[in-house]
Amino acid sequence: MTIIATEMLQAYPADLGGIDRQKLAECIQDCYSCAQACTACADACLSEDDVAMLVKCIRSDLDCADICFATGQVLSRHTGYDANLTRTMLEACAAACKACGDLCAEHAHMPHCEYCAQQCRACEQACRELLGALG
Amino acid sequence: MTIIATEMLQAYPADLGGIDRQKLAECIQDCYSCAQACTACADACLSEDDVAMLVKCIRSDLDCADICFATGQVLSRHTGYDANLTRTMLEACAAACKACGDLCAEHAHMPHCEYCAQQCRACEQACRELLGALG
Amino acid sequence: MTIIATEMLQAYPADLGGIDRQKLAECIQDCYSCAQACTACADACLSEDDVAMLVKCIRSDLDCADICFATGQVLSRHTGYDANLTRTMLEACAAACKACGDLCAEHAHMPHCEYCAQQCRACEQACRELLGALG
Amino acid sequence: MTIIATEMLQAYPADLGGIDRQKLAECIQDCYSCAQACTACADACLSEDDVAMLVKCIRSDLDCADICFATGQVLSRHTGYDANLTRTMLEACAAACKACGDLCAEHAHMPHCEYCAQQCRACEQACRELLGALG
Repeated sequence: MTIIATEMLQAYPADLGGIDRQKLAECIQDCYSCAQACTACADACLSEDDVAMLVKCIRSDLDCADICFATGQVLSRHTGYDANLTRTMLEACAAACKACGDLCAEHAHMPHCEYCAQQCRACEQACRELLGALG
Repeated sequence: MTIIATEMLQAYPADLGGIDRQKLAECIQDCYSCAQACTACADACLSEDDVAMLVKCIRSDLDCADICFATGQVLSRHTGYDANLTRTMLEACAAACKACGDLCAEHAHMPHCEYCAQQCRACEQACRELLGALG
Repeated sequence: MTIIATEMLQAYPADLGGIDRQKLAECIQDCYSCAQACTACADACLSEDDVAMLVKCIRSDLDCADICFATGQVLSRHTGYDANLTRTMLEACAAACKACGDLCAEHAHMPHCEYCAQQCRACEQACRELLGALG
Repeated sequence: MTIIATEMLQAYPADLGGIDRQKLAECIQDCYSCAQACTACADACLSEDDVAMLVKCIRSDLDCADICFATGQVLSRHTGYDANLTRTMLEACAAACKACGDLCAEHAHMPHCEYCAQQCRACEQACRELLGALG
């Protein structure tokens, strides 16, 4: 099954406030998808012959996975919503995705880095769009 | 974007062994999807009027989210594959999904629990099918 | 055994740069300790008779645990150090600890909230001191 | 501050059942401590000159960190206690710590692997002792 962030938002029993539900659902999905892609990319890098050239990329993947997951978790919660905390996590997540996407894009001749860069770009954009929608 | 476990498996630069790639990709997707659904369900339960009736469900959601995420992470790595460890995590994940799915199914009149139970059932089945395929 | 962040920093085989090792080690320890305390506090709140009064506290605990863990992970890595990312995570972690510490302090007559508030205050301070040391 | 698992167990407002509190508190502490050590060890391995020789160790560190954290989280919750799930996670955690401890012990001439192996041994033993105490 795929991530059902939209359905879970619709099923939330209390008021979600004025948040843009579509942007929120997309950002949640991108956070978990990016966490998976970064985890898989770090592991794929470990199996490349030139792993020594990829240590910064691996480290960036690991950070990005941890931060995307934590951000996805925070965004999946609406009870006692804290706009300030949501904003700081979206900024941290966008920064992590930017850094990781840039590093992966440098060696996009390796498909795992190419795909991972795409996920990072998408997640960074989703974080920034949600930040914009939060005002 | 959605979880691209299949693409990341194809992009893995070394031998994946004889593992059933389709079952593996589905299980990875289900682990991250279930982690998100359980996190959202725990939060939705917190906003229900009868939260006191739902504390076991919330606890089970939280455990299931942590275990599904850890299992998705382990399954996303193939370098230095450890069949024994993979098996124990799949068994733990299936147990967590069974427990959480059963609890959520008891109050499936609440859509968040209904959806979460479906995700747990799917993830439990994916774990068991992958366990069967591992031999 | 206790968290051996200091020993692991000493064992790091490359240059750690000019970072304040004592402040870094303390912040790492506080991040993992706070993650545990917040997870335990959320669960203890679930077993209180007046759980309905504590739902915001539980949600804040869950966010704080996720963010503290992710921050501890990022701070435990030094390869390809990214000062910008470190800073944004420290700011997010300090914000999460401030919010959770404030909520827990409101019902510090419950020992789990009292202890959790202490951990949150300590972790917030450690994050801010490390931020100051980073310049 | 250090992990206050003992204090949080004492602060739990409901019945903890017949569980051995000392063994439980030690196991919780070891899970979070081992997660930190494994995360730091994976990163230290990335900065070694012979990183290509250490890729299995890195992968094992990453799995062990994820599993130890998830186990520490599950053990930190007591509401709606599920003995079966606790047991399967303790078995998975002991297996992860055994595998990672064995790999790290093979290159204990590197202090980060030596310390990490010690943490893994301690966490594996704590898991097995708690398993024994659960009956």
